[in-house]
Amino acid sequence: MTAVPDEAAAPSAPSAPSVPSVASEVGLLAPVWAGTGVESLVSDEAYLRAMLEVEVALTETQAELGVVPAASLGPLREVARGDRIDLAALAREARDAANPVVGLVRALTAEVAKVDREAAEHVHLGSTSQDILDSALMLVARRVLRRIHEDLVRTADGLALLAARHRDTPMAGRTLTQHAVPITFGLKAAGWLALVLDADDRVRRLLSDGLPAQLGGAAGTLAAYGAYGAYGESGGGAGGDSSGTELVEPFAERLGLTAPLVPWHSLRTPIADLGAVLSFVSGALGKIAVDVQGMARTEVAEAAEPSGGGRGASSAMPQKRNPVLATLIMSAARQVPPIALVLTQSLVSEDERSAGGWHAEWQPLRECLRLAAGAASSAAELADGLAVFPDRMRANLELTGGALYAERVNVVLAPLLGKAEAKHLLARLSGAGGNGGAEGGASGNGTSGDGGSFAELLAAAPETAGRFADPEALRALLRPEGYLGASGVLVDRVLARHAKHHP
Amino acid sequence: MTAVPDEAAAPSAPSAPSVPSVASEVGLLAPVWAGTGVESLVSDEAYLRAMLEVEVALTETQAELGVVPAASLGPLREVARGDRIDLAALAREARDAANPVVGLVRALTAEVAKVDREAAEHVHLGSTSQDILDSALMLVARRVLRRIHEDLVRTADGLALLAARHRDTPMAGRTLTQHAVPITFGLKAAGWLALVLDADDRVRRLLSDGLPAQLGGAAGTLAAYGAYGAYGESGGGAGGDSSGTELVEPFAERLGLTAPLVPWHSLRTPIADLGAVLSFVSGALGKIAVDVQGMARTEVAEAAEPSGGGRGASSAMPQKRNPVLATLIMSAARQVPPIALVLTQSLVSEDERSAGGWHAEWQPLRECLRLAAGAASSAAELADGLAVFPDRMRANLELTGGALYAERVNVVLAPLLGKAEAKHLLARLSGAGGNGGAEGGASGNGTSGDGGSFAELLAAAPETAGRFADPEALRALLRPEGYLGASGVLVDRVLARHAKHHP
Amino acid sequence: MTAVPDEAAAPSAPSAPSVPSVASEVGLLAPVWAGTGVESLVSDEAYLRAMLEVEVALTETQAELGVVPAASLGPLREVARGDRIDLAALAREARDAANPVVGLVRALTAEVAKVDREAAEHVHLGSTSQDILDSALMLVARRVLRRIHEDLVRTADGLALLAARHRDTPMAGRTLTQHAVPITFGLKAAGWLALVLDADDRVRRLLSDGLPAQLGGAAGTLAAYGAYGAYGESGGGAGGDSSGTELVEPFAERLGLTAPLVPWHSLRTPIADLGAVLSFVSGALGKIAVDVQGMARTEVAEAAEPSGGGRGASSAMPQKRNPVLATLIMSAARQVPPIALVLTQSLVSEDERSAGGWHAEWQPLRECLRLAAGAASSAAELADGLAVFPDRMRANLELTGGALYAERVNVVLAPLLGKAEAKHLLARLSGAGGNGGAEGGASGNGTSGDGGSFAELLAAAPETAGRFADPEALRALLRPEGYLGASGVLVDRVLARHAKHHP
Amino acid sequence: MTAVPDEAAAPSAPSAPSVPSVASEVGLLAPVWAGTGVESLVSDEAYLRAMLEVEVALTETQAELGVVPAASLGPLREVARGDRIDLAALAREARDAANPVVGLVRALTAEVAKVDREAAEHVHLGSTSQDILDSALMLVARRVLRRIHEDLVRTADGLALLAARHRDTPMAGRTLTQHAVPITFGLKAAGWLALVLDADDRVRRLLSDGLPAQLGGAAGTLAAYGAYGAYGESGGGAGGDSSGTELVEPFAERLGLTAPLVPWHSLRTPIADLGAVLSFVSGALGKIAVDVQGMARTEVAEAAEPSGGGRGASSAMPQKRNPVLATLIMSAARQVPPIALVLTQSLVSEDERSAGGWHAEWQPLRECLRLAAGAASSAAELADGLAVFPDRMRANLELTGGALYAERVNVVLAPLLGKAEAKHLLARLSGAGGNGGAEGGASGNGTSGDGGSFAELLAAAPETAGRFADPEALRALLRPEGYLGASGVLVDRVLARHAKHHP
Repeated sequence: MTAVPDEAAAPSAPSAPSVPSVASEVGLLAPVWAGTGVESLVSDEAYLRAMLEVEVALTETQAELGVVPAASLGPLREVARGDRIDLAALAREARDAANPVVGLVRALTAEVAKVDREAAEHVHLGSTSQDILDSALMLVARRVLRRIHEDLVRTADGLALLAARHRDTPMAGRTLTQHAVPITFGLKAAGWLALVLDADDRVRRLLSDGLPAQLGGAAGTLAAYGAYGAYGESGGGAGGDSSGTELVEPFAERLGLTAPLVPWHSLRTPIADLGAVLSFVSGALGKIAVDVQGMARTEVAEAAEPSGGGRGASSAMPQKRNPVLATLIMSAARQVPPIALVLTQSLVSEDERSAGGWHAEWQPLRECLRLAAGAASSAAELADGLAVFPDRMRANLELTGGALYAERVNVVLAPLLGKAEAKHLLARLSGAGGNGGAEGGASGNGTSGDGGSFAELLAAAPETAGRFADPEALRALLRPEGYLGASGVLVDRVLARHAKHHP
Repeated sequence: MTAVPDEAAAPSAPSAPSVPSVASEVGLLAPVWAGTGVESLVSDEAYLRAMLEVEVALTETQAELGVVPAASLGPLREVARGDRIDLAALAREARDAANPVVGLVRALTAEVAKVDREAAEHVHLGSTSQDILDSALMLVARRVLRRIHEDLVRTADGLALLAARHRDTPMAGRTLTQHAVPITFGLKAAGWLALVLDADDRVRRLLSDGLPAQLGGAAGTLAAYGAYGAYGESGGGAGGDSSGTELVEPFAERLGLTAPLVPWHSLRTPIADLGAVLSFVSGALGKIAVDVQGMARTEVAEAAEPSGGGRGASSAMPQKRNPVLATLIMSAARQVPPIALVLTQSLVSEDERSAGGWHAEWQPLRECLRLAAGAASSAAELADGLAVFPDRMRANLELTGGALYAERVNVVLAPLLGKAEAKHLLARLSGAGGNGGAEGGASGNGTSGDGGSFAELLAAAPETAGRFADPEALRALLRPEGYLGASGVLVDRVLARHAKHHP
Repeated sequence: MTAVPDEAAAPSAPSAPSVPSVASEVGLLAPVWAGTGVESLVSDEAYLRAMLEVEVALTETQAELGVVPAASLGPLREVARGDRIDLAALAREARDAANPVVGLVRALTAEVAKVDREAAEHVHLGSTSQDILDSALMLVARRVLRRIHEDLVRTADGLALLAARHRDTPMAGRTLTQHAVPITFGLKAAGWLALVLDADDRVRRLLSDGLPAQLGGAAGTLAAYGAYGAYGESGGGAGGDSSGTELVEPFAERLGLTAPLVPWHSLRTPIADLGAVLSFVSGALGKIAVDVQGMARTEVAEAAEPSGGGRGASSAMPQKRNPVLATLIMSAARQVPPIALVLTQSLVSEDERSAGGWHAEWQPLRECLRLAAGAASSAAELADGLAVFPDRMRANLELTGGALYAERVNVVLAPLLGKAEAKHLLARLSGAGGNGGAEGGASGNGTSGDGGSFAELLAAAPETAGRFADPEALRALLRPEGYLGASGVLVDRVLARHAKHHP
Repeated sequence: MTAVPDEAAAPSAPSAPSVPSVASEVGLLAPVWAGTGVESLVSDEAYLRAMLEVEVALTETQAELGVVPAASLGPLREVARGDRIDLAALAREARDAANPVVGLVRALTAEVAKVDREAAEHVHLGSTSQDILDSALMLVARRVLRRIHEDLVRTADGLALLAARHRDTPMAGRTLTQHAVPITFGLKAAGWLALVLDADDRVRRLLSDGLPAQLGGAAGTLAAYGAYGAYGESGGGAGGDSSGTELVEPFAERLGLTAPLVPWHSLRTPIADLGAVLSFVSGALGKIAVDVQGMARTEVAEAAEPSGGGRGASSAMPQKRNPVLATLIMSAARQVPPIALVLTQSLVSEDERSAGGWHAEWQPLRECLRLAAGAASSAAELADGLAVFPDRMRANLELTGGALYAERVNVVLAPLLGKAEAKHLLARLSGAGGNGGAEGGASGNGTSGDGGSFAELLAAAPETAGRFADPEALRALLRPEGYLGASGVLVDRVLARHAKHHP
């Protein structure tokens, strides 16, 4: 077998810095979200805070129901508010239990005990790691989803303006990379808008259905919650009639989460739903990005991104103005769906808690949340500032010398010549008949290599029997305004949907 | 570079049959759906029929609106009903246009012309390949979704019976592969049921929101439909006031599909939604499968699949009764989400029709449909016939000598000894304190290696100060019935949801 | 919950054909491989034949070693050669055992018994379903891989011609969609070629390392093979010294497969490797496709696909000449990696045979094989016939009025003005300085909106202190030939690699 | 549309802490790698250092070739060694250029200028962002790969010991979750070992083939490098004969990377290869994890993880000793392949630099590296300390009352009764004949519900004609030692491969 080259054998340049001992991640490799503000919502600090919120809400609920003394609350709240938990140590300790909650409970209990020994006895009472972490995951997810929703609304507003302003601005419709028939830029923007509204509908549905709190205890029966509940403050014997379920609603309400019908430790509907919605968001925005990239191509030049302040600069080429927002959005659109697959596959979680399935969710969920949020933030900025160049759109419409209207002409010719004959003639006149691609000849873009434009050839073709002899009438036929179909009507429909989307 | 071994060098066994010239697929490698009946809904024949239905519905709609003469309908319907299109030839020809519709239109036109030359002029009038194929995809998808819905309802009914019957049947709850605390089998089955209802909710939402017909023409403006509409039968000049949109509603209605707000040639919400829902269905059923597999393990033996008629046989081992339904369901659960990723990623479709994005959808959509449908059919069969063994569940509950109730005991001990001390003691007594895993000693399943069971040790431990000295009381504490928590209540909740799910 | 609309409520158009009873798949939805010939290599018939080949090879090997009488061979070969197994029935029966081999063995045994009752006793002796099916999967995979290899070689040959012919043909290099600096088309084609050689290296490595036969018996110990071996023809008692391993080499050799070190029933390296290689092949070809699509865009028009015979036609637009081969290749590139993920994930296969993991491999492996083979076939055709338009490339190079050479000019200016100052000046002159994107002004493609081209502005800029005053020298600086860098050298390197790739 | 619930409406618990302003990630949600030491190899700090190493190596190479003055080196090295770059600011600035290099070059130049204004002019000379970042990605990847390699070797060593020690320790082989025939634990461990060697082979191949440096300049032609090279220190005119390629070898050598044949800005073979190999590593280790989980199940109890120091503790259940290492490994095995899909799909990168494809690689590559490294570290620990319980394995072998040997008995019976008859009889005796699954009866694990064990029934069955009447002989037949097949031979083979793997 091949030998592994010795690391030491590599020339140890005197300048090679040693590997650093600090090890964190602040977004250096993730410009789609670094700097958008979303990072503070999904940082390790944010997850730690969310877990502390959950522990506090649990004890508050238990105090409210008389399971623990109200006096326990003060010390716990004090510790939870503070900064006494060593995040890095917690992360390292998590290896022992395969999750960070065991260490957190230990540290939290110790800190509370420093304030009030008795109160420490009531921390995490009857609870299990998954109740704390799942509830915290939902808290974080809800916050990021709300941010995504806001940025989708901003994006939609920006796109609606573009669609309205360019309702009747003609441009080439393109299918399979080729000019097809005219559309309007308004229709294209309305299509983007429709997708963004679809995405926001899905985000809003998740938010209004509500993300569920988790409260099930060791194996989802709430037995320990019930046992402590029955036992209560009084120290009475086991038994009683608490099932533990009475905790769920007030606990969820404190956190602003939904009370689930049953614990969902290994029924991962909320995780799969989040994966599906975040994939959809990133994909819908990716559609905008891929179209903006196409329009921004140097040869097409129908749109440009908002610039200013060094935005879009290259490290090598002074003249470049890169479509960086579309690039960032695309980077998210390429990442989210595969990563979200981990969340979908989490549905297959064995037993009452999966040995690995659950643990595989946490980081991908965070990644999908911040990528989708970063993409939404970037899309809002893009929609607000996209520069559109109608003149260039019109110039591009001319590129094929009228061949773009072949279908339009066909409507006239087919009744005269028969469908097959008409199509054959038009293919020949527009250079698509098979000889237009010779290297020495035309450049394959539908322009006829020799003997004039499509329009000229059409006027002259004997088969058309003078039907297109009148230059004025022919010009009228071969202009975009005469063949935009329902573009305007369709724009209006999407704008009406947008208007209803948020009053 | 390494040389490729010569095929000819391989010993040409005289028995090696030549590669066949016929090339079809009937499900030999897909037992999860072959034989369930779903194959006829998604076969190439079914897609061809669906495309023909769409062509007919289009012409019927145009006839209804006076765009084409009603006399065109008879010949078209006659050809569409028949068997005149050569499927294999169509498949091969599809390479020329990158889709099967161009060839289909050619063949259909030719066949109609044989019956009525004039009628042939009105085939596919103003239309585009994507209108036909997308509408056909939705027709097929709707039919399969309805079947999935029916099988999910059957599955839910079977699971509801299991949950009700075993509402109070105790078994070990398992987390991270280890016995945790008792649950009931009813609770487990209710969890499965909740997931199946979640899955069916998503299927029903797709069906009741409706799958959209596609009608947009060359680039989604409906321009040609409008132009032919304005032109009409009368042969009048171009212009007029048809936008083409008036076709959409009646066309969709004829097909039992929804009229979309705008054409969705490159706005692939319906495709992404189908991918998400089919992934969810397969994952939800996969959860049942993985649990049944765990319960069917020879050592666990708490459940067995319905048998009879050779079901579950092995080609090697006479004694085997394999859980084949769970295996089939799992095979689908492993396939659908990755394949459905293609559908999610289709949202990033450039321009007015993607050059490859659209084309990548067809086969994965079919695959996901038939896999999810096959899994649902198998799950219904599994839920109907699953054999459950309560005695074995109870025997397994005894395996840890009472350590399963350590959390229960902790509720009593913690107030006495303090939380930390109590937990530490119980860990020691139950053999999880760190020395139970010695190879010479215990077998690591929570039973103490020496000196008696958890119950005996607990009774004898001096730290407990005689709290558990009464054997009767201790026995009462260490039995599942006393620590099922809210299991029964939770089962009832899910059953109530099921009862409301379909009256 | 929402009600599911009743199917019957949909207008039952009299033309709606009934769902067909025949259900097969011949490639209607898969134009990337239908018609390329690969379908006959991966059809259900092909898999059935391969399984029969494996059964025959096993018995032949056992006969050679004296385990079964040589007389058993004739009847078995006769049946295997024939057409006596009902494929559709086999597919349906596979549901009972979750694999098609149990039914195949039953049918095969019955058919052999019709010829020779004694011979039927020696069919599948000591064997297990997975030995037969895995070996058959490898037989089919090897045949398709060889085809892929051949088509990759054809593709490489075509690309090498393009790279050599256009070694010095300048075109715009594009980064982040924008013109960057000049490259040559030869360099682009050489890059494609390098990727195709990378892909073929991986295919060849799989072929030369060899795909392994499977022979392990019920749980991978070969115990039954050994027991029958020890028992032998003689009917002697159990025991003996056959371990069964002596069968493996001759069995594998008969099939042209490799003898594995150990049975790989649940060690799925060969499956994961196939997934990785087929993903690579499809991705490498996808790079060619995406670039061809970019060059074929109507506005760019630097390349066109081979046409003729209706290739590239649209059902709607007479003038269209779609890049269908690139579209087909792209459709495969979008599908294979997600589907191949199932194969990668198959590594996590529990126990001695996975309950679902194994079963999930079969269809995705077939799908990846035929998609990659179809893409390779299409790529070979594309490479052979791609039309390239150097004039249009040169015209596109002019589009930015010289700004494309800003980096080149920077090499001269930076020493004069300092790096930062020079870059700032050039950004301003080329319109990327922040004001070029105003909608009323430039079209965002680097051309300055007012006051002349980059070249003119450069000549006139006072900061350059007359350094570019000589129009002749400036023109020399701002032409592609002077700034192609190592393009030619790099092309030569790849061509040299290609020349060595296959002598 | 549904309204989004107002965040403000959620009860604002007084204890709810505010969202923190610091936002970093130290591994709180990733216990599979947090604490293993890999985090410092892939932290943002590590990537920053790697980019600085690349910038230094570039300038060193240019100084060596006389392109820049040697005096530039000191200041650059000084700055690069130090800690003067603000990582968080860099991350935020990266949004402007869609990558962190533009900001880094700006900051680096400014810092060098503070030391030596002239030296600052030679920073990043002729370079492009992708040259710096891609080379840095490879530096980081190489370091992590070496660590993975070391941990795979440790894992292999641990497994080899297990395989050797338990070469002849019988246990039940399991297929489709059911006892099949006996194997040895040594064979199972040898299978794991074979997979780990396969994984390490792939890692070593990547390392010995070498990861490539990137050096191509703006569009991969090295033109600016060449132009500055020709220009040189002397300030001579443009032209000269430097192509820039002379830089590549010494540059790569300084970094310990390979010199690529051509720049690979949009030829992403190295990225795809890393994705494939890291997927393989995680999948191979996942196979070990899933098997350990199966063996650790409370009912099976054939193995337990190394414990001690709180490892495996639960936050709820004192008695739990969770298989946390297997859980962590599984969490990685579920994540890596989907995430690595982003890397595979990166092959489809348009133009000379993809607008989004490249940017999508960075974070997934880091994620896959650290997950695979964490899994390998965990696997080494697991292999070192896995506790194996042969007595329990033997006890489990008895569970089916001898039915495990049905295939063995079949070897004797088939010649007597005929294959079909023998199999039918054995199925009946072992309770798999179809009636064993009645709920009131047997528990479905192959034991006959009534009338004795398989052995007793076999001895008594009239069909066997007294063949098994001798209890001694029957006992000899129905024990694992007599039916282990080639288990020992196969273990030896894998151990021999391991011995050769690293001498």
